[in-house]
Amino acid sequence: MNIEQFVAQSIGEWRSMRSGHSLAFQQFEDVLSEINITSVQTDDQRLEAIIEASGLTIKEIDSPFQMEWNAESDWEPDDPNDVSSGSCIIIPFPESETSGKLLRSVGYAESVPAESHYNFLDDGTFTLTTQYDQSIAEERIWFISENVRCRSSALKTSAGSGILQTSFASEVRKIKV
Amino acid sequence: MNIEQFVAQSIGEWRSMRSGHSLAFQQFEDVLSEINITSVQTDDQRLEAIIEASGLTIKEIDSPFQMEWNAESDWEPDDPNDVSSGSCIIIPFPESETSGKLLRSVGYAESVPAESHYNFLDDGTFTLTTQYDQSIAEERIWFISENVRCRSSALKTSAGSGILQTSFASEVRKIKV
Repeated sequence: MNIEQFVAQSIGEWRSMRSGHSLAFQQFEDVLSEINITSVQTDDQRLEAIIEASGLTIKEIDSPFQMEWNAESDWEPDDPNDVSSGSCIIIPFPESETSGKLLRSVGYAESVPAESHYNFLDDGTFTLTTQYDQSIAEERIWFISENVRCRSSALKTSAGSGILQTSFASEVRKIKV
Repeated sequence: MNIEQFVAQSIGEWRSMRSGHSLAFQQFEDVLSEINITSVQTDDQRLEAIIEASGLTIKEIDSPFQMEWNAESDWEPDDPNDVSSGSCIIIPFPESETSGKLLRSVGYAESVPAESHYNFLDDGTFTLTTQYDQSIAEERIWFISENVRCRSSALKTSAGSGILQTSFASEVRKIKV
C-alpha cells in the first residue's frame, strides 16, 4: 500500500460509528457521523497557504484530499465548543514508498494546523503520529473490506507515558442506489 | 515481537473498556470488564485434552496461558445466554518467529474450541484470524504503552464480504498498590 492507493480507497461518503474511551474516568462516548472524503487538485490555491504556514520545504505533493464530518448524535446542540461538524484539508508528502509526512489544515487533537508522520505497516495498515504542544496522537486506519474501514486513535501526554484517551471508529461506505 | 514476548507482556490483571459496533443496526454496546491473564505450565493436563480434541499434530508449544473475564456492566442479569464471565485456555504453536497457530478451549465468536492463525506485523501488532462454521473473526492487539493495550475485532460472514460487527477494547493494567 502507498499513500496514493490509500487515498484513492478512502475517497467517498462514509457512515461512521465512533466510540471514545476516556481511560482515567472509564467513560464511553458514542457518536454517529457522516464523513465525506474528496480529492483536492494539486494546484488548488488553498494548499499553498497551508504549506507556507507550515514553514516546510516541500519537494513533492501526492494525493491531497479534503475531509468533512457531521455528527448526528451525542452532541449538545448549544455547546459553544461544538465540534460536531467541520472540515480539513490533508496534504501528503511521501518520503519513501511507504512513509512520509502529512500536513493538516486543522489538527485532530488540537484545533491548529498539524504536521504528522505516516507509515504503512506490512499488511497495509496506515499509521499516523502527530506531535501537538500538549499531546501526541497516534492513529491507525485499516480496511477490513473494500467498503469498511476501521480507525483507532490514542492520545498521550507529550511528557511521556500517560494515555489520555483512545477511540475507535467503524466506517462503512455509503453505497449509492 | 514473538509470541513468547507478547504473552509475557500480556500476563496480568487488566481493566477493559470495550465498545461493540453492530454495523447493520448502527448500535453501540459498551462494557466494562476485568480480565486476568495467567501463565499455564506446559505440562498442565488440560492442554493435552484441548490438543487431542483438535486433531492437530503438535510439534512445539510456546507460552500457553489462561484468560478469565468478568463484565461489570451492561449485561442483563437474568439473561440465560449470559456471557458476562468466563475463561479459556490458549495454546500457541509457533510456525516461524512471527507466525503460527493458536488453539483456544472456547472460541471468541462461537462457544466451541477454535483454531486460529496468528501473525505479527512489523510494528509488533498481533493479528489473529479464526475460521468458525458461520463466521470469520479477525482480531488485532497492540500495545500503546507498557500498561495499555488495544484490541480490535471484526466479525465477517464465512461466505465472504459481509461484516457483521466490530469491537474495540482499551485495556489498562491494574497496578498493584
